[in-house]
Amino acid sequence: MNNVVQPLPAPDIVRCAYLELVVTDLAASRAFYVDVLGLHVTEEDEEAIYLRSFEEFIHHNLVLRKGPVAAAAAFAYRVRTPEDVDRAEAWYAARGCRTERRRDGFVKGIGDSVRVQDPLGFPYEFFYETEHVERLTQRYDLYNAGELVRLDHFNQVTPDVPKGRAYLEELGFKVSEDIKDSDGVTYAAWMYRKQTVHDTALTGGDGPRMHHIAFSTHEKHNIIQICDKMGALRISDRIERGPGRHGVSNAFYLYILDPDGHRVEIYTQDYYTGDPDNPTVTWDVHDNQRRDWWGNPVVPSWYTEASPVLDLDGNPQPVVIREDKSEMAVTVGADGFSYTRQAGESEEPGEEVGFKLGQQL
Amino acid sequence: MNNVVQPLPAPDIVRCAYLELVVTDLAASRAFYVDVLGLHVTEEDEEAIYLRSFEEFIHHNLVLRKGPVAAAAAFAYRVRTPEDVDRAEAWYAARGCRTERRRDGFVKGIGDSVRVQDPLGFPYEFFYETEHVERLTQRYDLYNAGELVRLDHFNQVTPDVPKGRAYLEELGFKVSEDIKDSDGVTYAAWMYRKQTVHDTALTGGDGPRMHHIAFSTHEKHNIIQICDKMGALRISDRIERGPGRHGVSNAFYLYILDPDGHRVEIYTQDYYTGDPDNPTVTWDVHDNQRRDWWGNPVVPSWYTEASPVLDLDGNPQPVVIREDKSEMAVTVGADGFSYTRQAGESEEPGEEVGFKLGQQL
Amino acid sequence: MNNVVQPLPAPDIVRCAYLELVVTDLAASRAFYVDVLGLHVTEEDEEAIYLRSFEEFIHHNLVLRKGPVAAAAAFAYRVRTPEDVDRAEAWYAARGCRTERRRDGFVKGIGDSVRVQDPLGFPYEFFYETEHVERLTQRYDLYNAGELVRLDHFNQVTPDVPKGRAYLEELGFKVSEDIKDSDGVTYAAWMYRKQTVHDTALTGGDGPRMHHIAFSTHEKHNIIQICDKMGALRISDRIERGPGRHGVSNAFYLYILDPDGHRVEIYTQDYYTGDPDNPTVTWDVHDNQRRDWWGNPVVPSWYTEASPVLDLDGNPQPVVIREDKSEMAVTVGADGFSYTRQAGESEEPGEEVGFKLGQQL
Amino acid sequence: MNNVVQPLPAPDIVRCAYLELVVTDLAASRAFYVDVLGLHVTEEDEEAIYLRSFEEFIHHNLVLRKGPVAAAAAFAYRVRTPEDVDRAEAWYAARGCRTERRRDGFVKGIGDSVRVQDPLGFPYEFFYETEHVERLTQRYDLYNAGELVRLDHFNQVTPDVPKGRAYLEELGFKVSEDIKDSDGVTYAAWMYRKQTVHDTALTGGDGPRMHHIAFSTHEKHNIIQICDKMGALRISDRIERGPGRHGVSNAFYLYILDPDGHRVEIYTQDYYTGDPDNPTVTWDVHDNQRRDWWGNPVVPSWYTEASPVLDLDGNPQPVVIREDKSEMAVTVGADGFSYTRQAGESEEPGEEVGFKLGQQL
Ligand SMILES: [Ca+2]
Ligand SMILES: [Fe+2]
Ligand SMILES: [Fe+2]
Ligand SMILES: [Fe+2]
Ligand SMILES: [Fe+2]
Repeated sequence: MNNVVQPLPAPDIVRCAYLELVVTDLAASRAFYVDVLGLHVTEEDEEAIYLRSFEEFIHHNLVLRKGPVAAAAAFAYRVRTPEDVDRAEAWYAARGCRTERRRDGFVKGIGDSVRVQDPLGFPYEFFYETEHVERLTQRYDLYNAGELVRLDHFNQVTPDVPKGRAYLEELGFKVSEDIKDSDGVTYAAWMYRKQTVHDTALTGGDGPRMHHIAFSTHEKHNIIQICDKMGALRISDRIERGPGRHGVSNAFYLYILDPDGHRVEIYTQDYYTGDPDNPTVTWDVHDNQRRDWWGNPVVPSWYTEASPVLDLDGNPQPVVIREDKSEMAVTVGADGFSYTRQAGESEEPGEEVGFKLGQQL
Repeated sequence: MNNVVQPLPAPDIVRCAYLELVVTDLAASRAFYVDVLGLHVTEEDEEAIYLRSFEEFIHHNLVLRKGPVAAAAAFAYRVRTPEDVDRAEAWYAARGCRTERRRDGFVKGIGDSVRVQDPLGFPYEFFYETEHVERLTQRYDLYNAGELVRLDHFNQVTPDVPKGRAYLEELGFKVSEDIKDSDGVTYAAWMYRKQTVHDTALTGGDGPRMHHIAFSTHEKHNIIQICDKMGALRISDRIERGPGRHGVSNAFYLYILDPDGHRVEIYTQDYYTGDPDNPTVTWDVHDNQRRDWWGNPVVPSWYTEASPVLDLDGNPQPVVIREDKSEMAVTVGADGFSYTRQAGESEEPGEEVGFKLGQQL
Repeated sequence: MNNVVQPLPAPDIVRCAYLELVVTDLAASRAFYVDVLGLHVTEEDEEAIYLRSFEEFIHHNLVLRKGPVAAAAAFAYRVRTPEDVDRAEAWYAARGCRTERRRDGFVKGIGDSVRVQDPLGFPYEFFYETEHVERLTQRYDLYNAGELVRLDHFNQVTPDVPKGRAYLEELGFKVSEDIKDSDGVTYAAWMYRKQTVHDTALTGGDGPRMHHIAFSTHEKHNIIQICDKMGALRISDRIERGPGRHGVSNAFYLYILDPDGHRVEIYTQDYYTGDPDNPTVTWDVHDNQRRDWWGNPVVPSWYTEASPVLDLDGNPQPVVIREDKSEMAVTVGADGFSYTRQAGESEEPGEEVGFKLGQQL
Repeated sequence: MNNVVQPLPAPDIVRCAYLELVVTDLAASRAFYVDVLGLHVTEEDEEAIYLRSFEEFIHHNLVLRKGPVAAAAAFAYRVRTPEDVDRAEAWYAARGCRTERRRDGFVKGIGDSVRVQDPLGFPYEFFYETEHVERLTQRYDLYNAGELVRLDHFNQVTPDVPKGRAYLEELGFKVSEDIKDSDGVTYAAWMYRKQTVHDTALTGGDGPRMHHIAFSTHEKHNIIQICDKMGALRISDRIERGPGRHGVSNAFYLYILDPDGHRVEIYTQDYYTGDPDNPTVTWDVHDNQRRDWWGNPVVPSWYTEASPVLDLDGNPQPVVIREDKSEMAVTVGADGFSYTRQAGESEEPGEEVGFKLGQQL
């Protein structure tokens, strides 16, 4: 293998495409993802359920696989051509990453794929070949009041955000938004290939862990309905955070927890990022509208809890502790909720006022 | 019976409460009202299905009864006290109307009731006693994307609108809106007891016939979903008119047709009428925003088609032809669609301009 | 003074009609209610601003009056007839309450009125006469994205909820919902005259104080827009609680604070209560979905903060401390947020499970 | 015509970016686009107004320029790099098309650009350089109830759709949907570069003419508000068609007419097309849900009326008559409205049933 990394072209990644999720009780997970959230079953057996959202036309965008430890087994991206799978394999191998190629795919409905253990410790998959299934877009007879229409993005916890960001930029991702402080610490970054705010985001913290997977809805009331339904089912304790409006991304959002504690975001109405000079928006970590535009508190569990990720042998990856400052520590008070720094308490020049705007181009 | 009508107090009517509808194919009607529209079955047997909307707490607000001729069998109103049933019986008897009292009710879930053949030929029912059932208001686990939440109103076709209006005013209804022309012809009137724009409306035409029954939704998107679902089921030919915004009532609306051609309106967001001096809004028949605020055409079938109503023996009432001008004739052009009179074509003073506002207090 | 209370008929109250609010900085309050919330100015001068919502047709439903101490000066109800003002005056006088009658009204746009200092210490007003103004219902050219359409209700803090409830029931109010515990303590009660869940509510706490005034919107997205706009204006610190779905009332809600700290609720989609046997729904104080159906925490300030109310001389009423258990104390943990009692920690029989449903008929 | 077309690479087009529209009364057009529709003025003078929608971050996406004849002066596309402007110039020159390059741009806010008279007779522009302005995405203080958020697409009338389609495919566009009949006639085609259903569409008819420009909203209620506002302003005669749900594209839509008769579509919620194998959906011209999923009629003016387009000298292009069958002729009945072919009246095999589904992968 060539030890000059630069000449190797990165694969042309189209979008985040599916997540393989290990769950400990398949029936309980089915009740959550199918009966509560209304995802559509493409195929299922004793070991796994293949699910897709309303406007997906490939075989699935979520695989629930039964296993002993709840974890994320693969973050899968679709690439533009079959050759881009080769490129992905070579690109990671050139970085010394373990890779595994399977011509018949790792899961049903997906063909020739490569899985890698990436430089951050995450199991990434790249594929082009996939089985097309009925796109349900106009099957309004199947449309439930809280319908999930697209897989929007992944979110990954990693201790060193600048390192992760640099790696993903080399892989071809662009940065739509990030959260920093005036000491130059980066707390989080949002990275995209498709023309939305992100296909994946990096959240600073002990990692590698999966923070969440996000599905989008058509409108805001669809998200409210999911809350209302969870209230009716008396599982409101599985509503972790929101609904609210993100500062970062501008999307209307909700975070809920599946039976294993895997976090799912429901998300709608971020913005178009397809222009070549789409600006990166930087938010100050002390702007308390950055994570909720209405200033509603971020609950501590949202910062601390996340799912293990598996290596290519199916074992949980060890977690590395974040050494940079933690966003929770710098923004959450003794009462367990976030606050906005008041005038006078600032340690950093330029942060004297309680609210600061994200820098926008 | 006292032949001095005046001293007899009218029953204190609370609201329109349910419609008994005769359908010719119970399974087909069930598919429409339950599978397509999502009404909830309280009880059903070979002969009848008792349905209620999401926020109803009495036994039903729609009864589908199997019969040889598609027709409306009873427009039922709830009254404030058990004694108001006696008052209703006496009030109609004093007017020479045929009445029938059943202590156990005419349908399941309803107790002591009186049915009358009213002065316009409609079968009206008045009851107080009813079986309470689970109010589904917070059963969001049952909430479909086009959920119907309340019975809003009836709409009746009658040849002589002023006569019908005077009768209903004596019965205690108030008039929220009407459509007239400058010759003093009344084309329609909206009458209410509860604090909405109407519990029933009178539409000028050959009658007695039932024009439609209307259910309300929470929001406008629920109505759009009903259209989308009917499109998905390839029954868009059952969408007769709309969706649109009414001029009269200001509600967002849709008219659809059930398997027998009974017209159902889906309706949301009219206004509060509970103040004692709530004004009557009068619209000019030549204002083409009166029936659709966006000026979209009223299809001719909406003016001409309606359901028979039954007498107390279950036979269809003969229909009397309207002698006053027809709204369709004065507003619909040779192309079969409504128009707005242009400047210069007016025969009537004050109607020179193309658009005229409803007179509002 | 007549000491036989019973024979005196209560006034026939139609609905809560307007609030007179004393504000300390009229320009700041105008910026909040007119520029941020979009209420419509009927009339204004150096001393007061008369505001109305989109679907109001009387002169105003909120009066902002400049004064030295931020407080609620009058909770005004409309009555059915001019004579009901006399009845109100006599009814309160018979209870030994101070009353003041003004044939020309206390504020512009309102005629013959009586103000009283009620048995709970609140300044109540009753009037029939009022100036009609343009109902803006179809003035969609004036409709802002967060438009407030109706005054929905008042909310009053009082130490002894059962006493307050008994008084309001004598005055003709009915109870739609309440919050109790298994020891028989009542924490709050919702009371209505119009056909919604309430015209006013009693919240147990140190009082008399005004907890909030509530305006309704057409749809849920209108409320989200108000949050988004407050975020854009960087006044998200004035968003106190929500948005959320109430358990009690089922309405979608938001609480915000005006420049003086007066609390305003924005509210939509509760249910019809007009039937004579509309059931009272009782919630257990330990059901953590009672105040937010999604189980989101109630912030402590929502329990503790409220506005003074004035006596008929314009002086703040002294506040009486609640002696019954406080809802916050029994439901909010050491972290300052509410929780649901877990199995095993119950002191009270029947409360062993974490979640309990409101008892519904 | 250069017969060695192949070697010249097509410019990498990012998206439709702005339309330059000639209007005859700048004040009247400003009233429509700014006061009614709420587009934001970036810059204006006596001759032109530069407008942008809420989520645009380049200088404008609509230019209104005063002129003697209402017409479309340029359909402008953004390209990925400055060099793509060179590529565009060469690509069209190689096809014998007249081109004009201006290093300082043809309009304010845009730098180095080339305008061409394309093979179909349309004035196309390609540019990379542009002035960035404030993206208003989170300026909810400026958000009106019918806010337009993005420029979505153009729609062009051309007589020979297959020819136009082939040309645009060579230019790099892909086809998301089309309308055909069983004789192989193509009636319309939807072509995209960004990841939505289209950046432009070709509608068969006498051309070159501009059929419409389309802006998107966040949600469906925003579009309903535009109708409601036009009703309130008594310009409902400028609502030409809709609102409705498209079959093709699945978007919720509305067509309105500006003071010169230029057609504007308001559009929301089509679907993602970014995958490399996104399928082309073909609709049968006899499927009457193809243009309105609810089967509501297409008004004849929508088929027949369109705006002239200008050549590079600013003169209206002559119009060539369509020789293929017209969609209106094959689908609209004697009453002037579209219908669905009933069983038995079909001339073409396979079209015996009234409704036919679009062929979807
Ligand atoms: Ca139709
Ligand atoms: Fe996310
Ligand atoms: Fe109706
Ligand atoms: Fe309230
Ligand atoms: Fe279009």
